[in-house]
Amino acid sequence: MPETIAIIGGTGPEGRGLASRFALAGRRVVIGSRDAARGASVAAEVASTLAGRAGAGAVEGASNAAAAATGDVAVVTVPFEGHRATLEALVGELAGKVVVDAVVPVRFERGPRPVEVAEGSATEEAAAVLPDSRVVGAFHNLAADSLLDLDAPVHADVLVTGGDEEAKRIVSALAERIEGVRAVDAGPLRYSRFVEGLTVLLIGVNMRHKTRTHVRIEGLPA
Amino acid sequence: MPETIAIIGGTGPEGRGLASRFALAGRRVVIGSRDAARGASVAAEVASTLAGRAGAGAVEGASNAAAAATGDVAVVTVPFEGHRATLEALVGELAGKVVVDAVVPVRFERGPRPVEVAEGSATEEAAAVLPDSRVVGAFHNLAADSLLDLDAPVHADVLVTGGDEEAKRIVSALAERIEGVRAVDAGPLRYSRFVEGLTVLLIGVNMRHKTRTHVRIEGLPA
Repeated sequence: MPETIAIIGGTGPEGRGLASRFALAGRRVVIGSRDAARGASVAAEVASTLAGRAGAGAVEGASNAAAAATGDVAVVTVPFEGHRATLEALVGELAGKVVVDAVVPVRFERGPRPVEVAEGSATEEAAAVLPDSRVVGAFHNLAADSLLDLDAPVHADVLVTGGDEEAKRIVSALAERIEGVRAVDAGPLRYSRFVEGLTVLLIGVNMRHKTRTHVRIEGLPA
Repeated sequence: MPETIAIIGGTGPEGRGLASRFALAGRRVVIGSRDAARGASVAAEVASTLAGRAGAGAVEGASNAAAAATGDVAVVTVPFEGHRATLEALVGELAGKVVVDAVVPVRFERGPRPVEVAEGSATEEAAAVLPDSRVVGAFHNLAADSLLDLDAPVHADVLVTGGDEEAKRIVSALAERIEGVRAVDAGPLRYSRFVEGLTVLLIGVNMRHKTRTHVRIEGLPA
């Protein structure tokens, strides 16, 4: 189980939500930002919501580069428009590490619309940009609101894609430290497009039904 | 609620499964095939599995054209390679009708692989080919084995896409006549690609985990 989790581009709701949950599970979390001061202020905010919770890990802020260098595992939660450039700047820091891409290629224009990615998906783009990292796709489908609602379990499956089986096991174990979450091996990297696409669908369902939804795969062996 | 359901290209497992469930729900079902005799023999087989079940509707076989002409609603379950040509031949028969596309653009080559569709999805291809029909996407994610296991409810959500709200309601009501099924409005036609892609993902999960899975959207209002 990794000790320190870096959240790259972690100041948005999804990054904060994952940071909160990983800290709640006793991990040390470093929230990375383009702006180290912004990372620090968001980290302080997240840490304050965890005050008094037994066993919670420290939450710190840093630049994306410093966070990437510090983390045993890095989770990428930048908006899609910054995805490629952010990772291109971190090739060295992330070499050899498990990198979890949680980014959904989506833009908003009267509802969520998918953005075409040359590599097929954001996760495959990350794998192309970071050839020396162990890239896995995960966490796309967890609604930030649910992650931030710390007293409620997140009743959701996390669909994990990738070609590095050990990296997938590490990420799956980390995901299952979030109360209520089950990790499901969803296949190789090339299936990431479906997980990312499903997220666009869920965002649409959420807007349509004015709620926040998650997905469960029924019928898996216990 | 439509009285007669045509299943276009309905002799495969998915077509048989849907035919069985609709008949079980008291609908008259016409199983269409390129070969009317084949449609008739599969229909007789499906009818025999329903023998003695109170309230079951008749199951008949026909050519695809005769089935399409007879049905109040047509459900399309041809393999993707026959999708466009099959529908092109039925433009007249299907004009003005609710047409439900359940086809997944997939081919099998060391696991399921998506097939690119110029229109974005099989359902959008159907809408392009059938401009005078009321095209809806649905039923993609119901495993044929589960549909054919008549004594067990199908614990699954059917994701319904389309632009014709009344057609979606008709199809949703029909879907919910299958025991255990809940219909979820998954948005406009352009979201069909995500529903179809999700099916490719589930097929992969099924192969990987040697099981049959369905999807549930958690968090919708009851």
